[in-house]
Parts: sequence; C-alpha cells; structure tokens
Amino acid sequence: LHEGYFFPPIQFTDQKQEFNKRTSNTGHRSLPHSISQSSTDSYGSVCSDSSEDGSSPRDKPRRTSKGLSDFCIKNIKQAEFGRREIIIAQQEMPALMILRKGAGGEKPLAGAQVVGCTHITAQTAVLIETLSVLGAQCRWAACNIFSTQNAVAAALAEGGTPVFAWRGESEDDFWWCIDRCVGAETWQPNMIMDDGGDLTHWIHKKHPSLFKNIKGIVEESVTGIYRLYQMSKAGRLCVPAINVNDSVTKQKFDNLYCCKESILDGLKRTTDIMFGGKQVVVCGYGEVGKGCCAALKALGAVVYVTEVDPICALQACMDGFRVNKLSEVARQVDMVVTCTGNKSVVRREHLDRMKDGCILCNMGHSSTEIDLVSLRTAELRWERMRPQVDHVIWPDGKRIVLLAEGRLLNLSCSTVPSFVLSITATTQALALIELYSAPEGRYKQDVYLLPKKMDEYVASLHLPTFDAHLSEVTDEQAKYLGISKHGPFKPNDYR
Amino acid sequence: LHEGYFFPPIQFTDQKQEFNKRTSNTGHRSLPHSISQSSTDSYGSVCSDSSEDGSSPRDKPRRTSKGLSDFCIKNIKQAEFGRREIIIAQQEMPALMILRKGAGGEKPLAGAQVVGCTHITAQTAVLIETLSVLGAQCRWAACNIFSTQNAVAAALAEGGTPVFAWRGESEDDFWWCIDRCVGAETWQPNMIMDDGGDLTHWIHKKHPSLFKNIKGIVEESVTGIYRLYQMSKAGRLCVPAINVNDSVTKQKFDNLYCCKESILDGLKRTTDIMFGGKQVVVCGYGEVGKGCCAALKALGAVVYVTEVDPICALQACMDGFRVNKLSEVARQVDMVVTCTGNKSVVRREHLDRMKDGCILCNMGHSSTEIDLVSLRTAELRWERMRPQVDHVIWPDGKRIVLLAEGRLLNLSCSTVPSFVLSITATTQALALIELYSAPEGRYKQDVYLLPKKMDEYVASLHLPTFDAHLSEVTDEQAKYLGISKHGPFKPNDYR
Amino acid sequence: LHEGYFFPPIQFTDQKQEFNKRTSNTGHRSLPHSISQSSTDSYGSVCSDSSEDGSSPRDKPRRTSKGLSDFCIKNIKQAEFGRREIIIAQQEMPALMILRKGAGGEKPLAGAQVVGCTHITAQTAVLIETLSVLGAQCRWAACNIFSTQNAVAAALAEGGTPVFAWRGESEDDFWWCIDRCVGAETWQPNMIMDDGGDLTHWIHKKHPSLFKNIKGIVEESVTGIYRLYQMSKAGRLCVPAINVNDSVTKQKFDNLYCCKESILDGLKRTTDIMFGGKQVVVCGYGEVGKGCCAALKALGAVVYVTEVDPICALQACMDGFRVNKLSEVARQVDMVVTCTGNKSVVRREHLDRMKDGCILCNMGHSSTEIDLVSLRTAELRWERMRPQVDHVIWPDGKRIVLLAEGRLLNLSCSTVPSFVLSITATTQALALIELYSAPEGRYKQDVYLLPKKMDEYVASLHLPTFDAHLSEVTDEQAKYLGISKHGPFKPNDYR
Amino acid sequence: LHEGYFFPPIQFTDQKQEFNKRTSNTGHRSLPHSISQSSTDSYGSVCSDSSEDGSSPRDKPRRTSKGLSDFCIKNIKQAEFGRREIIIAQQEMPALMILRKGAGGEKPLAGAQVVGCTHITAQTAVLIETLSVLGAQCRWAACNIFSTQNAVAAALAEGGTPVFAWRGESEDDFWWCIDRCVGAETWQPNMIMDDGGDLTHWIHKKHPSLFKNIKGIVEESVTGIYRLYQMSKAGRLCVPAINVNDSVTKQKFDNLYCCKESILDGLKRTTDIMFGGKQVVVCGYGEVGKGCCAALKALGAVVYVTEVDPICALQACMDGFRVNKLSEVARQVDMVVTCTGNKSVVRREHLDRMKDGCILCNMGHSSTEIDLVSLRTAELRWERMRPQVDHVIWPDGKRIVLLAEGRLLNLSCSTVPSFVLSITATTQALALIELYSAPEGRYKQDVYLLPKKMDEYVASLHLPTFDAHLSEVTDEQAKYLGISKHGPFKPNDYR
Repeated sequence: LHEGYFFPPIQFTDQKQEFNKRTSNTGHRSLPHSISQSSTDSYGSVCSDSSEDGSSPRDKPRRTSKGLSDFCIKNIKQAEFGRREIIIAQQEMPALMILRKGAGGEKPLAGAQVVGCTHITAQTAVLIETLSVLGAQCRWAACNIFSTQNAVAAALAEGGTPVFAWRGESEDDFWWCIDRCVGAETWQPNMIMDDGGDLTHWIHKKHPSLFKNIKGIVEESVTGIYRLYQMSKAGRLCVPAINVNDSVTKQKFDNLYCCKESILDGLKRTTDIMFGGKQVVVCGYGEVGKGCCAALKALGAVVYVTEVDPICALQACMDGFRVNKLSEVARQVDMVVTCTGNKSVVRREHLDRMKDGCILCNMGHSSTEIDLVSLRTAELRWERMRPQVDHVIWPDGKRIVLLAEGRLLNLSCSTVPSFVLSITATTQALALIELYSAPEGRYKQDVYLLPKKMDEYVASLHLPTFDAHLSEVTDEQAKYLGISKHGPFKPNDYR
Repeated sequence: LHEGYFFPPIQFTDQKQEFNKRTSNTGHRSLPHSISQSSTDSYGSVCSDSSEDGSSPRDKPRRTSKGLSDFCIKNIKQAEFGRREIIIAQQEMPALMILRKGAGGEKPLAGAQVVGCTHITAQTAVLIETLSVLGAQCRWAACNIFSTQNAVAAALAEGGTPVFAWRGESEDDFWWCIDRCVGAETWQPNMIMDDGGDLTHWIHKKHPSLFKNIKGIVEESVTGIYRLYQMSKAGRLCVPAINVNDSVTKQKFDNLYCCKESILDGLKRTTDIMFGGKQVVVCGYGEVGKGCCAALKALGAVVYVTEVDPICALQACMDGFRVNKLSEVARQVDMVVTCTGNKSVVRREHLDRMKDGCILCNMGHSSTEIDLVSLRTAELRWERMRPQVDHVIWPDGKRIVLLAEGRLLNLSCSTVPSFVLSITATTQALALIELYSAPEGRYKQDVYLLPKKMDEYVASLHLPTFDAHLSEVTDEQAKYLGISKHGPFKPNDYR
Repeated sequence: LHEGYFFPPIQFTDQKQEFNKRTSNTGHRSLPHSISQSSTDSYGSVCSDSSEDGSSPRDKPRRTSKGLSDFCIKNIKQAEFGRREIIIAQQEMPALMILRKGAGGEKPLAGAQVVGCTHITAQTAVLIETLSVLGAQCRWAACNIFSTQNAVAAALAEGGTPVFAWRGESEDDFWWCIDRCVGAETWQPNMIMDDGGDLTHWIHKKHPSLFKNIKGIVEESVTGIYRLYQMSKAGRLCVPAINVNDSVTKQKFDNLYCCKESILDGLKRTTDIMFGGKQVVVCGYGEVGKGCCAALKALGAVVYVTEVDPICALQACMDGFRVNKLSEVARQVDMVVTCTGNKSVVRREHLDRMKDGCILCNMGHSSTEIDLVSLRTAELRWERMRPQVDHVIWPDGKRIVLLAEGRLLNLSCSTVPSFVLSITATTQALALIELYSAPEGRYKQDVYLLPKKMDEYVASLHLPTFDAHLSEVTDEQAKYLGISKHGPFKPNDYR
Repeated sequence: LHEGYFFPPIQFTDQKQEFNKRTSNTGHRSLPHSISQSSTDSYGSVCSDSSEDGSSPRDKPRRTSKGLSDFCIKNIKQAEFGRREIIIAQQEMPALMILRKGAGGEKPLAGAQVVGCTHITAQTAVLIETLSVLGAQCRWAACNIFSTQNAVAAALAEGGTPVFAWRGESEDDFWWCIDRCVGAETWQPNMIMDDGGDLTHWIHKKHPSLFKNIKGIVEESVTGIYRLYQMSKAGRLCVPAINVNDSVTKQKFDNLYCCKESILDGLKRTTDIMFGGKQVVVCGYGEVGKGCCAALKALGAVVYVTEVDPICALQACMDGFRVNKLSEVARQVDMVVTCTGNKSVVRREHLDRMKDGCILCNMGHSSTEIDLVSLRTAELRWERMRPQVDHVIWPDGKRIVLLAEGRLLNLSCSTVPSFVLSITATTQALALIELYSAPEGRYKQDVYLLPKKMDEYVASLHLPTFDAHLSEVTDEQAKYLGISKHGPFKPNDYR
C-alpha cells in the first residue's frame, strides 16, 4: 500500500548519512507503511474484535446514541469498551491532560478545523480529544489499514468526532475514508495533522484549492517528513510544516526507553521464556540496541552485541557486553534480536548454525533485518505454534522460533507504553497550536523543526508524573552560564 | 472448595514459626486451594477456550483418534493445539528431557502405576509424559477446578494418558474425576503424586485398601505437606511420603527467580504501564519481595519497601531501597505490590490515601493481603476495565486499579516460566523414582525430605541449559575440605 | 604466630561439613591469625606511621597529657590524629552511638571489668569506648601483631583506656601485652572479650584463678569459636561463652555487603584498573562470590564464575553469569578473583594460560586459594611494582599481576566499611551486657548463640542510619501469623 | 597562574551556548588551569615523593645513568620507580602500544621535532615515548605546576627524553621550563603538542620566528582550544591546529565512563564510606552526572538528582531517579555530589540544612560549584581530618565533610583509568601524525576537528583490549545504507 501505488519507493541509498543520523528515527509510529502492516494482530490481544462480521462498514449506516451519523467505523456498540481503553491511556498521558486543564476558559484552537490522518488507537484518541477540548473541530482517518483499534474508533465517534476508519480497510476504503474526512460539505480544514504524508498527498492531488485556507501541516513520520522535504525542494510545498519527528524529546525518549520496556514484554507474551541466564545476541548497539541490551541484562540474560561501527562497539564493550560477530555466537545463543536498521543481518548461514529452540525477533527499523527469503525454502517446514509465533523446522528436527515473521516485535507482539507516546503526542499538539496561532509571516512555506524551548516545554509537562521538581537558575548563575534563566538550556544544534 | 468441605480450615495460628520458615513456600504451585481459584482466566490469554459450549464433559463420550475412550476432558479436537503448547514447554524443561534420554533402554518406573492429581498444564504434561517414558502407567486428575488447560488435557488424552479434568469443574465433577482416576477396573495404583492432598485424602477415605499396594506419596504443596504431617502425627500415615516442597532447589529458585520474571509480565499484560520512573512500594522483603524489587528497580522504577522484620528491613536498606511504612508512602506511589504472606497489609486507611490511578496487586501467598472487604462498600463504585482489571472509583472520581481482585498476580495475569517449574517437576520425578525403587525398609511410614545429594543432582540436570561447566574437586581439595569429591557440598541443615 | 606455638594447627579436614556451613564465616575479622598478618601495610594508606623510630615501646615510659601511664603504645603524640579517625568511624557506627545515648543515667556495665584482645582499629576503639560509656572499666591488647593502628591506640590511651599494643610487636611483645592487660594490680577482670582465643588461652594457662571472678566470654572469630567448642567438649570451659560469629546479623551482612563494597576498592587502590568491559572470573559463588560478582557486573565487567556445587552454579547461571571451568576461561580473562574457601584453586596450569597483564587476587577465606608455591620457581621473576603489587614475569615476558601475595585483598589493600563492622561490634557489646547482667543460672559453662530476638534488635539499631521506618504488626496480623507483635520474626533455626 | 598573568580571564558569559554544548568537555585533562592545581596531592597516594628535599632542581645539575644532562627534574634516582608506573600504564593503553608495533620499520614521525607541554604522568609518558618510537624527537615541559609525577619525569629523562618539569614549580620555574624546552641550541621544533595553550602562547610571544618551521599544533584542552579560536578569529594563528578536545571519542567516553569509575574510588579513598543504602543527591544529570548516578545506584545508594534542564530531568526520572530541588533533600542526604558546570549550586542555605556527617564533593567542571566563601566564616570551624578531607563544624557540633576543598574529586582524590586516557592520547598521536604528514595545502591556518573516520579508527584500536570483533558490512548492506563498507558510519555532524 501507499508509496508503492502513488510514489516511487523511497530510495534509501540516496539518504546516505541520513540513515545514521536517524537511527533514532525508527520509532514505532514513524514507520514506513509497509512495516506498519505488521501490526495486524498486535492490538488484538487487548482489544479483540473477533465478534465482528465481515461486512464493510461503508455499507452499513450507523448512528451514535446521540443520533450523529457523520462517521464510518466498524461497530458503534464497542464505544463503551473503547472509552475504557481511552481512560486507561489518559492515566499515562499526563501532559495532554495538563494542556486540557491549562486551557481553562481559553481555547487556543478555537476556530481550528483540523483534518487528521494517524493511527487510531487509545493514545491518538487522547490527542484528538485534547485538540477538541482546546477548541478545534476535528475529522480523522486512519493512516494504516491494519492498525485501527475499532473500539477506540467507536468511542471517538460516540464522543462526537467524525472518524472514518476500521481495521482491515481495503486500499479503496483507505482513500475513501481520507476523502470523506477531508470533504465535509459544511467544513473546510485549516490545519493538517499527518502521519506518513498520505493525507497531505491526497489534498495536494485532489483538493489543492483547500491549501488556500490551510495554515500549516504537522507531520511526525520519517516517511512523511521525507515527502515534505521533497515537496519543499521541488517548490511544491505551499504551506509551512513542522517536523515533529526530529524534535529532541521524540528522539531522546522514543527509542531507548520504549524499546527497553517492550523487548521484555514482546518476548514474554509470545514465548513465556525465562530471561535469567539465557544467552542473547543483540545485533546493533544504537539507541534501540542499547535499550534492549539494558533490559535483557537487567533481567539476568547474558547479552552479546554485534556491531559494524567501532564507536558503538566500544560503547558496548565498556557497558559490559561482549562484542562478537553473529557467526561466532550463533551456535550458542538462545535468542537473537535485531536492531540495526540494516538488511539481511541474520542470514541463512547464521540460521543454519543456531541451536534448537533459538528465538529470533526484530526490534529494528524494518522487516528486512532477517533474511526471510532464505527460510522460505522447500526443505524447511513452517509450523504456526501460536499467533505471531512460527517454528521453522529443519530437516533434522531443529526448530527456530520466529516471532512476528520478522516484523517489529514491539508493534506486533507487545504494547507500547502510553507515556512514551505522550511525549510525541504533546509535541504534535503544541506544534499545531504554534502553527495555528503564529502571527502571519513567522513561518514560510518550508519545513521547520521545533525550537529547543518548545522541546523543553514538552519535557517539563511530563515531569509532574514523576513528582519531579526542577531547580531554578539564579540570576548569578544565568549570568555565569550566559543563558536565560528560563532556558533554552540546550544549544540549537543539540539533538 | 476443598478444605472447607471436608477438612477444618488450616489454622495458621498453629503454625507459628512455621510461616516464617516458609516465606519461601509461597510459590505458585503450592498455594492453598482457595487461592488457586484465582487462576480462572489466567491461562486463557494463551489457551483460549472461548469456542467451547457449556455442556458437561461427563455427558459426552469422546474418543481419541486411536479409539481410546478411558478419559474425560472438554474437547479432544484441541489436542493438536495442546501438543504445540507441550512442545513449547519442553524447550524450557531440559532436565526432564535429559531424564527421558538417560533412561535409554532402562525403565526405572517399569511396573509403576501412578495416580496423579496436579494442575493440568503444559508443564505438568511434560512431567506426566516423562513418567510414562520412564516406564510408568499414569492416570491423572486436576487438583484445581479452574486451572486446567483444556487443550493440554486433550493432548495428554490423545497421547494415551487417561486424564479426567477440565476447566470449570463443579465440586461434584472434581471428586468424580479423582474417583475415576483411582478406580480403574484393570489397574491399581502403586504410587501417588499429589498436589494439595485431595487425592491422598480421597483414597484414604474411600479406597483405604489401595494403600496396601502403594509404595509411597510424592507431595509438593504447603497444604498437602501440612496434611501429611498431621496424618503422621496422628499415626494415620500408612506409607512413606516425600516432601518436595521443602527441597532446597524448590526453595532457592521458585520464589526469587520466578517472581522476578513474572512481576513485570503480570503488570504489563494487565496495564501496559511504563515502569521507568514509576514509584512503587513493595510490601515485604522476603524472597518474593526481593525478586519483585530487583526486577522493578532494574527497569527503572523507584522502589520503596515496607517490612516488619528488622533483619529483612536492613537488607532492603543496604540493597538500596527506602524502607517506609505504607501510610507514609501511600500518597505518592504509582503501584503497590504485596508480598508479605500476611493479611490486611493494605487497608482502607491506606487505600484512601492513594492517588488517582494507583495500581494495586498481590504477589504474596494469599488473597488476604489486600483488605478487599473494605473496598466492597456502597460509596465505592467498581468498574471492570479489562479482564482481571477493576477500577475502584471513589466518590471524588479517584480510581484505584485493582488487579486480579487481589489474588496472585503471576498466577492470574502472567505465565510462570516453564524453566522454574522444571526444577520442581524434576524433583517430583526423582522423588517418585526413589520411593518406587528404594529397597524395602529404607523408608518408613513417615514424611521425608530429599537428601542434599538429590537436590544437587536436580540442579546439575539444569546446568546444560546454560552451557554451564562445573569445576571438579581435586583429591587434595576434597581432603582439605573434608568432603567427598562428588558432594553433597551443602550440610544437611542447609536450606 | 599463635596457634603454631601453643596449639596444634587447626585440622580443617576434621571440620568436614563445618566449612560449608560456614562459607559465610570467612569475614575479615574472624580470620585465622596466620592470615591476618597480611594486613601489615593495609591501614598504612590512610594512617601512615612512617615517622616512627625503631625502638620498642616497652623501653620508653610514656605518659598521657593527663599524666596517666598505665598503657604501652608506640607514640602518644599521635593521639590527636587517632582521635580524628575514631570520630570518622563513629559516623558510620550509629548503633553503638545509640547504645551510648540509650544508657542515659543507667550504666548496664557498671562494675564490669573487661579485659579485651581484638584488633586495635578506629572501629574497635568505638566499641571499647562504648563499653566505657556504659560503665565498664576496660583494659585492652591487640589480637594481631600487625594490625594495630598506632594512632588509634594512642587516642585510646589518651582517652583513659589502658592499651597495650603497637604495630609490629614481636611474639614476646604480644604475650607481654596480654599479660600486662590481664594482670593489673588494682583490678581483676570479670568479663573477657576475645577475638581469636589467645587471651582466653593465656588466662587459662597462666592465671586460671581469675576465672572464678569471670562471668563470661564473648568471642567472635572462627578460630576462637573452634577453640571454645574444643574446650567445652573437653570439659575445660569453666565459664559461659557467647558465639558472636554465628549470629544472623553477622552472617547475613558481613560477607555479601562487605565484599561487594571492598572488591572494587581493593582493585582500584592497587591497580587503578578500569572495570568497564574487563573480563573477570570469580572462583566460587557463595556469599563472598555473590558480592564480588554483583559489584563487578554493576561497574560493567564481564563476569564468569567457577563452581563445584551445582546449586550455587545454577544460581550463578540464573543471575546472568556464565559458569565455566577456570581452565576454559583462564586464557581470556583480565582478572581472577578467588572466593572459594578452598585450596589450590588457581594452579600453575591455569597461571601458565593467563594472558599478559592478568590480575590475580584473593577475596576468600585463606591465603591458600592461589598455589603460590608453583610461582616461586627459578624461571619466574618477581618484581615488586607497588606496595602489595607484584609482577610475576614469565620467561617470554608475560606478566601476571599478583595482589597482596594471595592474601585477602580487602584486608590488605582496601578498607572495610565501618558500618558493616558496626553490626558485629554492636552484637559483641550486647552479648557482653547479656552475659554480665544475666541472672545467675541463665548460662552454664557452655557456648551459646544469640537468640534471634537480639539479632533483630541489632538490626533495628542500624535502621535509623537509613531513616528506615519499620511497619508494626497489628494484633490481628500477629494472631494470623501466630507470632508476637514484637518478634522474633525468624524461626530459631534461621541462619 | 596562567591566564591570570598574561591573558584576560576567560569570559564564560561570552560563551553562551558554548557551555552547554560542552558539558561533556569537563574532562579531567582539559581543565582550566586554576582547577588543575587541586591535583597537588592526588598522585601522591601511589607515588609518594616524601623523601625529596626542598631545593630547586634548577640549582642541581643531574645526569642520567648514560650521562645525559639535557633535562631538569627533581630526582633522577626515582627513575626506576617511575618506569614501573609507566609499565603499569602501558597495560591499559593498548592502542598506543599497537601504534608502536604498527610502525614496524616505518617511522611516520621520522624527522618530527615535537615540543610538548602537558601533564607529566605515567599516561602521558606512554604517549611521549610512543611518539619517540614512531620517529619523533621530543622535548617536554609540564602544563601544570602541581601535577607532575616526579618519578615518571625521572623515568622519561633516564629514557632519553629531555624533560623539564617537577611538582611544585614556581611560576618563574614554569616559564623557565617551557623556555628550556623550546630553545635547544641544536634543535628546532616543527610540531607542537599543547594542553592549555601556554606553550603555544610562549612561542608566539617569545620565539615567533619558530612558527616558520612548525607544521601544526595539536591541542586538547577547553582552554587551549578557546585560545586557538580567539587567535584564529584575530587572524593571529599562523599554523594549522587540530582540536582534539571535541573529537567524538573523547566526548563520548571521557566523561561518562571516567566519572562512573572514579566517583566511587574518590569517595572510598577519602572517607571509606559504605555506599549501600546511603542517600546521595547528584546535582546535574549531564554526562558526568549520569556516570556518577549509575555507579552510585549500582553499589546500592539511593540517588536523588537536581536539574535545571527539563530534558535532562525527564531522563533522570525515566532512569529511575527522583528529581528534587537541593533544598528539598538537603536535610536527608548522606552525600552531595555536584556535576553541573555551574557556580554556587550548593549554597550556605543548603549547607545549613545538611545533617551531621554529610559528605560534600565536586565532580563537575570547576571548583565554583560549592560556595566555599559562605563556609569561610567566623562561626564555622574547619578541621583537617585527613589529606583532602576537612570537617567544617557548625556551632552546634554538626560536621560537614568537605572533600578536596570543593575541587574536582577524581583529580584530587582518585586516579583516572589509564584506559580512558588512552583514547585521548591515541587521538593526540594520530592528530600529530596527520598534521605532520599531510600534503602541503591540506590544512590552512585554521582550527580543525578530526574527521569521523579517524575517530572511528581510534575506537577500533581500543577494541582488541576487549577481544571485540566487529562485524563487516556486506556490499549489499553498504548499498542499502548508502555508505562505504569501511565507514565512516556516523554523519559528520554527529557528536
């Protein structure tokens, strides 16, 4: 879906240094769309939709308890369950709740008409409803055909947000939903919140005249940002855009902390493995690898690292991990976790060496890290043991335990902590307010990064969760350091 | 169920020092039966039985693919799925697989006719089928009406083991199953493997003549051991019994390592909470508490401890945990975990202080640690948010998140690592072999502990999993230490 | 010195299980005396006595600033410096300071005339002066000819305690000091505090009539306890004695926590080595080994373990350490640490495999763990690089870095935390009070262990340091558990 | 000394963002010179020079065993001891030893005449002698009047390097040494290696004609780099210079790993404190703070953090540290460690709240973090307890334990791991080779950063120490990532 149909595939080889600069971009929400499809069953563990029939929501007119009908979702009856999930997510998204309260009588988004296209989950629901509380009128579609939590979509609709999304949309459904979202008769969007660039693309192609009213775009995915920069270069970007993906808070927190929490969760839910004493090799010691290694070591695993970059390798060494080639440790390890952002890191030559029962999973940035093609051969038998768990069986009976078919483990087999998502969502909300309320002329038709000051504000909104109290800079200290008492504390080029 | 019907309730106040000596007894498998009921939905996450109808298995004759009919389970069609779960469990139960291989041509249990009554799970299935490989004929019933994994029971039956068990038995079903298990026409048990003492009790009451043929009992639960000692004191124990519960390997590994692994898993599966920076109070710093604290700290939580015992409190301090009264920290913590083995540790006075969203769960030895009665009052509203997750809502809107209604979190909401269960299961198997093959007169009509040497053997069988290589004691060293080169290395009173 | 002269050497091979039961006995203060000699230079790093001349203190009459002369030490002028060391130690020995305050007007040791023979260090000085504050009159000698901190001895003398001790006593000096200590004209001891048994032995041999007045002995070393049990068996023990060495608090805290702190310190002070990424093998995974492994891993070392005992080996595995034979890892490790209590654990065959620069040290219970004899051969050259640091140089230039000539690293090359010593010292003080004030007949002529209650009291006296607040057992809970609200909380056989 | 005499003081307020960008610059070797004076006694613990008389080395002609006299040091007799220290340092500086071997017959520095001015320690001696092995002729002076290890200087001289340095130089001595170093009759420098910029400054002022022959400057301190940029801006820099201080390897490894290792060491050597359970507040959570917090937590301390920057504060939270204001925790903590790079972080208002025995030390970038002026008042009594340890005594008897008078703890009271210094020293050596051997025109009269490729080479030279094996990038992967197979792997703006 997506790029393949309307855009040429992203040429990673053009990015050169780009990749390295963005190893930390491999966050869960900013995935190339082809990867996000892996999340098919991921949310199902909690939010099971098994009772749903196969008919298309487009065929069945539905209505909320208050009689609203401007939406299209799977099953409005799930609204109550979805509302409970949203309530749970709210507990871990304190900054958005503070923004709501902070608004008080003031409505910074009064008059804003936001069309959005993101994953539809409990966490994004908290974001969407926060925008509404701040005065915006929102219409929303899903940025991925598989990731929608139907119950949450129902709760949003029941709560009054026109939502057009369900899990398992066809491609036609996908664009239909976006179009319905954009094209209300009584309403014209003046702000875009996008995740992947499809919404922006659709408006550009089909409703370019809308851009006259649009004050700006907030985009948070690698793919979407890449598209925006391309448009900008080509002179086709006709409104300002804010790049949320490369904000400091997102970069500093998303990968390390999120993966540290979810690697254990994903492995437990799929395999019930005991970590204590197990030998694990983690391929790649960037931020994702660092998070995985820290968590696995903390639970008593013996962790090995593979690296191509000497600086990361030296960090791994000094952090207490043996650095080896995969071929050297493949024979002895109980688990292999890939976190490189590279392709074909685990190849048949390694797989042939692994021992019976070895677990294989991917926490990295694409599903290409494990060379699955080499496992789809006649002599190897695949057996689906549990959802997301395949045994690939060698002729001699050896079983390799493959999780999520090599797609992202934490998207497919665990949940992602709402708190980490809260940081990105808050940044999105603030970026939207900034673009919407900025005086004319502050932003041109270009792609902007958030100023450090706003990054620091996002961080500060998350401190009350931890009952953390910042120290204040005294006048004397501010003078000594040559900074303002109220920040920013980081230089502009800090990332 | 159980004690309440036929036995007077266990008088804990008689045990006095017993409890303390046995803080480590609070393992998952040796729970008083009233607690084990909490496991109703626990295994469901993996092994969902939702398609099953409501009819009683007793009414529907079933037959395996090979035409066997001497069993009674829910649905033989689930055998294939159950077999996959058993295969997964085998990967983590290496010692039993070694025992199977070690047997070779030899069948140490040839002629043994074992009647068993334990939880019916993938792990016990590995144990039961190991006994069969070693030569035993087995018949099995469930020791708990809620804990049976129906698919595993089906796989056992399909594999040829007469099993009488299903999830959701009535009390009548429970005893009917045990009776069918004992009373085969063509077969008389000569060994008992029990978990909780109900099977032993039933034979004693209903088929006392069977004891003439029975060579011994292997019992592994606190409750069952308590009953055996009572019988022994009363002079009513007419065969030897081995107390597996108090073996060193079980005591040293079950609680610490098992809880360290499962506290995180149980919290994640129910609440998707992020651990980093969360404030947690762990009530009790025995082995269970030590495991919970270590895991939570390792994932970045700020952990407080409460203790009544100064020695454990001092250990907590020196391990880096603040020791406070619950009333002192109740206001600030995000989670409360009880691990004391005591009752009413968390009381309404504490609950009233907790903040909105505080999560409350129990890893300790009984469901009495949280005073639930004080929460079942008119002014508090309960809302079931997810399976095993209730919000208790105060009049002012404050929500306390109660997990598993205060029953054991790791039994109810997570899985228990097969590897840890392997240690107990191996001990059970070896105890059975010992009792069965011991020369006449070695064991009297009494309750025995395993000799250290056998404990050390169980441990050594688990070392290959870790590719661990023991050093050998030289002759010179053995002489210096005054021990045998081959152990035992611990004194007899070591626990 | 010592045993060799008047006693047959301790036959360890007679102890059989004894050793294993007492792996935790290998604490710093209860060392066989032949080991303690290793502490020659240990305290020197802080408390340098370089200005002292070579003359014997016995020849030079000295006098305190107040004119007292009933003492014999090296140099009274060092009193001020020694007092500062005592003040520093007091900060970390809170329980003794609480005892002093607790006394208030009351003097539980009023009338006690205590003759003592222990190491003379800042920590024992705090103990001795605590006894004085509690009403006792004390006279003190050193239990080791090398370990006396001369400045501390000076401070004690200046403070009014008759002390007879200096670093570097001859054997004749040693017994002369003890004799002067015992044999005051105006004073007869009625209590003995001993560490190693030499004082008890001397009185037994030379002044047996004194035992008529003596109410009891407090002994805290393995060696001294061994002697007392031998005397008791032989019917020659004529007063009650309390075995402090085997008290729970000493056993539970001394080895684990003390070694965890001092292994890093000892290695840093001698070698300035960086721990991050270094490969270390720790021989033995008892309490000492567990402490060393935890500390080294925490600082980023890659730690391997060797073990002979399968149970300890399995613990090491599940704690995340690879278990190997020394011969398997000798080639690759940067450091070897012995903690077994065994002999010849590191042998020439291992030493020959080690790589250039490998550091070798002993944290275990005797200096026999490394086979030094095999290193004292013609082809190997020894070079003293720093105090306590030798390079043993192979013919090909390979250097093995041997610390403290294989004696205890933490006694020889680091300091031991005063706080841990405080636990033992408090136990000694309480044991002395108990024996002194016990009603006639409570104690016979036997060796006693402390009751759990007193162990728990010692622990509780150390909690205020950590601002730790114990929870109280409610009446309902006490009844449920069948214990007293005020403890003891551990069963009597708990260790 | 230094800046104060010939340069205006560095105006930190001009640096603005500079400071923040360079929080990681606060390494031990790149300190403003006024701080380095704190190292007076630091090396003395190991390398005691107590036997030296007070006469000036300038007055006493000395001669090596081979008759050389072109040097001026304290005492040539210490050469043997100094050589041993150099040998110990070599063991931990593997990359330089590899460079020596790598040279083989080739001498990349043949013809180089290097005049150097750095600290004279065992580690810099390894660097200097490496340059010699690579073909250079070196003459060396000390960049600090207090930090010279006299025995090492003796060993260098004995080894043939003209060295002019001793501990305790007067200011006049300082410049005399530099001048003697520069001004050999038979020799003209063509390369400068500087640390602090004094040497460069002196040549510029006194021997400007020498710059005609000089091919470049290698500078590694913050101060020296600042001076070079000022010279460059003013158009007075007449040769190329390489800024070693801001190389990735130095920035990524120096602060985090170095401080993690040395905070524990510094505290132990001065106070013998037990870490387990102690409450510590670490002010500042930059790289230095992160290292200190990690180490203290790992040893069982309860760690609090203070921060002014919300992003660092949020990291501290998610890493498991409570973030508080100093005033909030001052009353309860046992230790205060400053790591902010700011001034007056600990003020009298905080000091007044601290409890008796609280330990106070500085790991940050200047001695200004603790407001010492507020402690130099009449009512407070200072007592020197040990070297580098003062008790500041309040009128009520409360004692605050101040270490190193607030100067850098790890420079003053512990050693710095040679391995970490090795990374910087290797970078210096490679920078020197690059500047010396670069073709004419590659470098202009400007200040250069090392290319990433060379940073990665430095890292790779340190991997063999850990027996670490890098993975290789395949052709397919290189194409996928758009990078060269051999790196660099980091983008140019990576820091």
